[in-house]
Amino acid sequence: MKKYAIGVDYGTNSVRALVVDIGSGEEVATAVYNYPSGEAGILLDSSDPNLARQNPADYIAGFLQSVGEAVSAARSKSGFDAKNVVGIGVDTTGSTPIPVDKHGTALATLDKFKNELAAHAWLWKDHTSHGEAEEITRKAGEAGLPYLAKCGGTYSSEWYWSKILHCLRTAPHVAEAAYSWVELADFVPAYVTGNTDPDKLARGICAAGHKAMYHGEWGGLPSAKFLESLEQGLSRFRYETRAVPSNHKAGELTAEVADKVGLPAGIPVAVGAFDAHMGAVGSGCGKGTLVKIMGTSTCDCMPAPLSEKLPDVPGLCGIVPESIMPGMYGLEAGQSAVGDIFNWFVKHLTPAAYGCEAEAHLRLTEAASKLKPGESGLVALDWNNGNRTVLVDPLPTGLLVGQTLHTTAAEVYRALVEATAFGALTIINRFEEYGVQVEQVINCGGIAEKNPLVMQIYADVCARPMKISRSAQTCALGAAIFGAVAAGAHPTVEAAQAAMTGVKKTVYEPIAANVAVYRELYQVYKTLHDAFGTKEFTGSLSGVMKNLIRIRERARKGQSFEGMAHA
Amino acid sequence: MKKYAIGVDYGTNSVRALVVDIGSGEEVATAVYNYPSGEAGILLDSSDPNLARQNPADYIAGFLQSVGEAVSAARSKSGFDAKNVVGIGVDTTGSTPIPVDKHGTALATLDKFKNELAAHAWLWKDHTSHGEAEEITRKAGEAGLPYLAKCGGTYSSEWYWSKILHCLRTAPHVAEAAYSWVELADFVPAYVTGNTDPDKLARGICAAGHKAMYHGEWGGLPSAKFLESLEQGLSRFRYETRAVPSNHKAGELTAEVADKVGLPAGIPVAVGAFDAHMGAVGSGCGKGTLVKIMGTSTCDCMPAPLSEKLPDVPGLCGIVPESIMPGMYGLEAGQSAVGDIFNWFVKHLTPAAYGCEAEAHLRLTEAASKLKPGESGLVALDWNNGNRTVLVDPLPTGLLVGQTLHTTAAEVYRALVEATAFGALTIINRFEEYGVQVEQVINCGGIAEKNPLVMQIYADVCARPMKISRSAQTCALGAAIFGAVAAGAHPTVEAAQAAMTGVKKTVYEPIAANVAVYRELYQVYKTLHDAFGTKEFTGSLSGVMKNLIRIRERARKGQSFEGMAHA
Repeated sequence: MKKYAIGVDYGTNSVRALVVDIGSGEEVATAVYNYPSGEAGILLDSSDPNLARQNPADYIAGFLQSVGEAVSAARSKSGFDAKNVVGIGVDTTGSTPIPVDKHGTALATLDKFKNELAAHAWLWKDHTSHGEAEEITRKAGEAGLPYLAKCGGTYSSEWYWSKILHCLRTAPHVAEAAYSWVELADFVPAYVTGNTDPDKLARGICAAGHKAMYHGEWGGLPSAKFLESLEQGLSRFRYETRAVPSNHKAGELTAEVADKVGLPAGIPVAVGAFDAHMGAVGSGCGKGTLVKIMGTSTCDCMPAPLSEKLPDVPGLCGIVPESIMPGMYGLEAGQSAVGDIFNWFVKHLTPAAYGCEAEAHLRLTEAASKLKPGESGLVALDWNNGNRTVLVDPLPTGLLVGQTLHTTAAEVYRALVEATAFGALTIINRFEEYGVQVEQVINCGGIAEKNPLVMQIYADVCARPMKISRSAQTCALGAAIFGAVAAGAHPTVEAAQAAMTGVKKTVYEPIAANVAVYRELYQVYKTLHDAFGTKEFTGSLSGVMKNLIRIRERARKGQSFEGMAHA
Repeated sequence: MKKYAIGVDYGTNSVRALVVDIGSGEEVATAVYNYPSGEAGILLDSSDPNLARQNPADYIAGFLQSVGEAVSAARSKSGFDAKNVVGIGVDTTGSTPIPVDKHGTALATLDKFKNELAAHAWLWKDHTSHGEAEEITRKAGEAGLPYLAKCGGTYSSEWYWSKILHCLRTAPHVAEAAYSWVELADFVPAYVTGNTDPDKLARGICAAGHKAMYHGEWGGLPSAKFLESLEQGLSRFRYETRAVPSNHKAGELTAEVADKVGLPAGIPVAVGAFDAHMGAVGSGCGKGTLVKIMGTSTCDCMPAPLSEKLPDVPGLCGIVPESIMPGMYGLEAGQSAVGDIFNWFVKHLTPAAYGCEAEAHLRLTEAASKLKPGESGLVALDWNNGNRTVLVDPLPTGLLVGQTLHTTAAEVYRALVEATAFGALTIINRFEEYGVQVEQVINCGGIAEKNPLVMQIYADVCARPMKISRSAQTCALGAAIFGAVAAGAHPTVEAAQAAMTGVKKTVYEPIAANVAVYRELYQVYKTLHDAFGTKEFTGSLSGVMKNLIRIRERARKGQSFEGMAHA
């Protein structure tokens, strides 16, 4: 008799539930719920481009609707019985902290705060607290505290304490009303299991370790003394709970929720974790296997055995024991915008000749596919939403160089794709510079699935084969894997991965001639990266434009780049 | 009884004839002829974006058609009589050299060469000879020759000898068939007066001095020895004619041409000169009055008395005695692309929301007008077509920095307008650094006429009032002025200007608050300009993006920039 797990994946604009056969990985049914609030689920403030909030009510409705519909759809499949659902896992965006009252109820769901942006969920891509992030970095450094060694040396405006600190300073009445702040990844399991008491609810090591400076080495969260040194009252949000990986249970499905979604009460629900981490597991990550989750932004995850001592790698978002898989360090890097950059270009800078917004991606991709690497003479920096790895700086902005009076939209589009590939290579290089070998790259997410041009460019730029996860729903699949493991239906995450994951037959192999061109272009990217992104750069930029022209002319004439000296 | 002169203005895409009352400057009639060949009159080569040629037959047809139509239109005005046309002047783009046979006939008009791009007119914006330009600069320097001192220290790929040298090397059969090369500005007067013998036809000092290294100091064109050192056979194109300003006659209208255009034969035709120079005269240039001719590119012209010794100003396109006005040095600077950059953006990167190409300029301008200086966080370099002044380098390319995921097309459009304004300020600064005071700026050309946003931004960036020439056809008006002066109908150019030119009532005054923001943004532009454009730059770019954000935040909050220290 088949057994099932359900993975519930909270993305930036919607939530998806997936019913999976835990024996084969077969995806039996799925349902998506689009957040109804704001613009595509995001609450914006036109006067502040850094602000991005969400309505916690959307998360609750999202669970009920998506799980309910998926279960209902599964019922129509032969062999499915809701009684055979053994576990539920949850993954979410993050760091997306939510202020809650002493019962664990989101403040924004209370009448008093429903119109208060600060009382809502602070979505991962909210950068309002960049000043606070810089301050945390500076003060931790000045105090000689080790807190940042595990998260790249720089605290981010996307993270837990920056956001809470910013709230404390700019919306003190909200901070005052908050009893605690709960990551979305913990908020959902708490809600559906009824274990919402902020002092007791299960806190995942993934969110805590990567975003809240939680680490066993210093006994959990940063000290109350340090938090108070940032702002009086901040230490009140220092919870004492031990953060655990997602092979642990957060509790069991309450009768009330179970009833609404058509499942039996009491199903084990795993501790939540971030979408990218569970997506990495659902894609088959492991030692030496880097998984790139490609969506609006990108998250690059790779586990490394706890038994092998790792150096602190500067610029990584985090190196946290057990944050991806039990028994392994979780290494996380990422790019602040990938699909978002392509979407921005389509929305704001693509002429009518490429059709409506829906068509434009396809038609730009088609036109860009016809271009040879280097022939546009363009190079871009992929920093329209800052740079998460390796600069760990939310403020840098985009850059495009090389445009002439003949530059086309397709050329710019391709340059933006290439820029994100150069960003990806910069991350792989950083791993390897610190002794963490990347033996295999598996990609997942919509872009990896749907855009062969992007994947081929990544293969050519990174000079490595690019594999694609078999599942199109790796985050939800990873969540389901943890649901199964937390329920004891698989003994280990590895065993569950062996049964439930795989890669597609199509592998994007690097093309030698393209690799040679991109080796040249990457030097230009790296020069711009270092010049605009670091204080240490002492080189000259006077050759950048002419170097691009030299590459452009060679590419247009079809001359070989093999064995060329790097300019 | 009213007297008239006719100015014939050869632009990049069309030719315009203008009939002017020489007593009042009243523009009696005008007619335009669009060049029928190629793309908007330009012959292109899709495999080489640097190539831009024109069909000399279009120039001949253009004179006959436009003058004929303008005269015909003037006839319908009361008081006009073709007998009272006292003179004709001609201005053209340049350097646009045309290979001709020993009779002065354009090779491209012969059957044998009609399909040969090299045998056509080499339009000013043809950059195929950038290698040759660099070589001329280098060899003149190595030989210790003074030839480049009067044209900014760097020879350009847009100019006479670079183009002839490139033709000699890449199309030797064309070079061999050429008896001489004649600038378009000289070709038209020669044709319409019948004085086409290449050894005798009138050569204008404007083209010769600014583009062919002609100078009295070394007795005319560069020495045969120097030309031969560039390539054997090049010295064959060294003409001995004395180049003269446009108050001289090139000859009189032939009976054949006169008949075709409805004028009496024998009307004096002035020596030709470049459109920008004659446009400057038609706009009212004089000592301390800079005229900016704003079109697809920009030309900045200012005369300075011959009696005042001038230093050699590096980076200027030229300092040539009498090239703009008799008795004055002609100082010329310019921007390789201004309107062309806006047109490129509209054609290639403007979404459907701004309407069709024809509407988009207006709607982008309207949206850009609503933005406050600095609030986009963007800065661009205006180098999509190279940089004429002060880098004198055709190769640099465009750059845009500061884009986020929210950056709109209108913001980029405004940033491009601002970039051209920063380019304009860089030119004014260069004049003044070398002691040539700019006391007044008069703008002319389509952009100055039609786009108040552009003019206000120029006023704010340059911190000077921007005046607009009264005539919308200043180049043709300037040509008509020279037609009148060459005919002796006005004693001097100054006297003709006093009678025939003026500025509009609307003056764009700098707005103090905007001036303060642009002072900041110009520092960013200057940093990028020097970093990408010069080998000497040793500063850091690590602050560029954050500085733009700092400016953006101040601008959005409406904070004052007055008296701020420059970052």
